[in-house]
Amino acid sequence: MKFKITIEYCTLCQWTPRAVWMTQELLYTFHQQVSEVSLIPTDGGVFKISVNDQLVWDRKESGFPEPKAVKQKIRDVVEPDRSLGHSDR
Amino acid sequence: MKFKITIEYCTLCQWTPRAVWMTQELLYTFHQQVSEVSLIPTDGGVFKISVNDQLVWDRKESGFPEPKAVKQKIRDVVEPDRSLGHSDR
Repeated sequence: MKFKITIEYCTLCQWTPRAVWMTQELLYTFHQQVSEVSLIPTDGGVFKISVNDQLVWDRKESGFPEPKAVKQKIRDVVEPDRSLGHSDR
Repeated sequence: MKFKITIEYCTLCQWTPRAVWMTQELLYTFHQQVSEVSLIPTDGGVFKISVNDQLVWDRKESGFPEPKAVKQKIRDVVEPDRSLGHSDR
């Protein structure tokens, strides 16, 4: 069962490059498991990452993530038994 | 009425960076008009760009596009009266 990742980000904050970078990181790690990675431009200082509409990262709670932390969160939701190799160390 | 852009691309062909680059280009030009830009990893040499499920670019017919050409195609579908500035010259 493939899953969808969604990244909502604030364009006024100039976070487009950051959101796009995260997209590429997640596509490289999960391209075989993901149906779609979706970028949603918004405002209000939002930077949120969700998997199948389940929020896994919110900048307002946890600050900006390293890709490694997001990959672990996503893995924990969608395939908890998978090792992420060096992203788990 | 906001629109959705979809980019389907072949991961086996190593087109992830190209697809992500195009995503960033389109987000910069259309961030106020777009609800979502979605990346769909697939195979088979696919590189297709759609707007609201209407195909606007297919590599198998037209080769790889410059961002300018894609922006013009999208503009023609969603807001034909808009000038794209230097992307129209």
